[in-house]
Amino acid sequence: MRIVVALGGNALLQRGQKPDAEIQEANVDRAAAALAGIAEHHELVITHGNGPQVGVLALQSASDPHLTTPYPFDVLGAQTQGMIGYWLLQSLQNHVPNRQVAAIINQTLVEAADPAFADPTKFVGEVYTEAEASSLATERGWVVKADGAGWRRVVGSPRPQRVVETRLIRLLLESGAVVVCAGGGGVPVIRDEAGLLRGVEAVVDKDLTSAVLAEALDADVLMVLTDVPAVMEHFGTVDQRPIHRATPAELRALNPPAGSMGPKVDAVCRFVELTGGTAAIGSLDDVEAMLGGEAGTIITPSGRYDGEDVAQRVPSRLRIAAG
Amino acid sequence: MRIVVALGGNALLQRGQKPDAEIQEANVDRAAAALAGIAEHHELVITHGNGPQVGVLALQSASDPHLTTPYPFDVLGAQTQGMIGYWLLQSLQNHVPNRQVAAIINQTLVEAADPAFADPTKFVGEVYTEAEASSLATERGWVVKADGAGWRRVVGSPRPQRVVETRLIRLLLESGAVVVCAGGGGVPVIRDEAGLLRGVEAVVDKDLTSAVLAEALDADVLMVLTDVPAVMEHFGTVDQRPIHRATPAELRALNPPAGSMGPKVDAVCRFVELTGGTAAIGSLDDVEAMLGGEAGTIITPSGRYDGEDVAQRVPSRLRIAAG
Repeated sequence: MRIVVALGGNALLQRGQKPDAEIQEANVDRAAAALAGIAEHHELVITHGNGPQVGVLALQSASDPHLTTPYPFDVLGAQTQGMIGYWLLQSLQNHVPNRQVAAIINQTLVEAADPAFADPTKFVGEVYTEAEASSLATERGWVVKADGAGWRRVVGSPRPQRVVETRLIRLLLESGAVVVCAGGGGVPVIRDEAGLLRGVEAVVDKDLTSAVLAEALDADVLMVLTDVPAVMEHFGTVDQRPIHRATPAELRALNPPAGSMGPKVDAVCRFVELTGGTAAIGSLDDVEAMLGGEAGTIITPSGRYDGEDVAQRVPSRLRIAAG
Repeated sequence: MRIVVALGGNALLQRGQKPDAEIQEANVDRAAAALAGIAEHHELVITHGNGPQVGVLALQSASDPHLTTPYPFDVLGAQTQGMIGYWLLQSLQNHVPNRQVAAIINQTLVEAADPAFADPTKFVGEVYTEAEASSLATERGWVVKADGAGWRRVVGSPRPQRVVETRLIRLLLESGAVVVCAGGGGVPVIRDEAGLLRGVEAVVDKDLTSAVLAEALDADVLMVLTDVPAVMEHFGTVDQRPIHRATPAELRALNPPAGSMGPKVDAVCRFVELTGGTAAIGSLDDVEAMLGGEAGTIITPSGRYDGEDVAQRVPSRLRIAAG
């Protein structure tokens, strides 16, 4: 099977941990170990978040007296693709020595007219007081918004349209390589009036990019890994309980909050609706159990999934053609 | 033909320029434009330096109050592979839209017992006074040495043994992709006692890595691009003049200074001696003329090179088998 796995930011850096190299390397190594079994037996694409990492590098860059202006978010995102890509590359090579691993730099095409550029909503970097945030907004041209009790910088999060390197990623998969890509949702780029690619100041949601990529690759399964074992119904109430199976319509009916679970639900539903494939949301530690149908929330067109059949399934592109 | 081109640091950031994203992007775009013709008609691998860039990120990291310890040089090198790889990827896609471009993160294997670890010699980052350097050495555990009138940090520059992703790079080339790799000479790694890859605090010479890679890929040509139009004989005297053709023995007899031209001469000579292929040292602006035999210093086993024949040459691996 062809599987796209989106690693959540918490897989790389847990809330409250310092962004030290040593700590992140240990986290990445744990993620690579959890994914090793799937990497051995399937075509695997691994995408990953970069929220905390891009925040760290953005602050470093903003404090650098040698730069006329801090590095823009496309460049910072590319730096994190290099750093996190290196960690994943090395750990996967150590855990799955019989497979080639390709960690590639990649770009995600967005639309210059995306409304997200006019109304930025994605929090990046540190939490400030209102006064600090206001002065930084003046000084550095940031847009800042309240995030709970504090204030943070926001940048636009335009909708991903296409992973520019899709053809390359397919080639690598078909050649037997495990592919690490779409770090931080991919470096956001637009095509300008001359048809040339050009980076933009934005961040792209990595789960939405992963869904766009999974669709373009005709993946059989899209797995979105996060810090909860499943999507919950009646979330935050005494009736809260995990959802094991769902159709896209059932999952969308939950109206999950926009900040955290929303884009994940949006991403997996869109993938299942467009391709008829299988998606899952759950914890990194359960990744093999999820593929077997024994953990996580599994989303299929029918709301049914028999993990036992998984290895024998006809690839989704053939099922669609036959249907 | 299969060609490995090593871009010098000055192609990305000229002496005296600020390391702003905008400035580096313009330089990279100029480099991509110069290489576009070769990328269209040959199998092309592009490697690049990262000296100024890794120096900038090292200083940022060393000043970051959120980190317990600054990022080590393997991680910083990976960050620069992401950043510079992104710029090259995008510019090449814009200049050579009919070719796939793969910018990959990659590691270079070095020996844990390399004497360079005991006697570091590679200057990185800013120039300090002796007093500043001495206090930084104490505070951060740096090794510092005099560089002309000032003092700078030094790290080990072990000899590259193998590019870990060689097989992947060959696959990409044979699939028709232009490959960007070995940024900063590759992220330096060792194999530990358990056989696992592990990053080390070092920088690898990108020209030596390029030669190791060109040899492993059976490249026909290795081109080392720098800020001089050719290797000079009687360098720095009134008799100084460019060398147009040389055998490896003739070039080695010049005894070029260790700091700048030394590793370039070492790299190209080793490649020609081991493979019987063709190497060249010269300026980015002359890259097509060099391939035609009309610019740069060209190094071949015989010291002869007819640029007109270049497209018809039998690949070096076949010549070796036949010879």
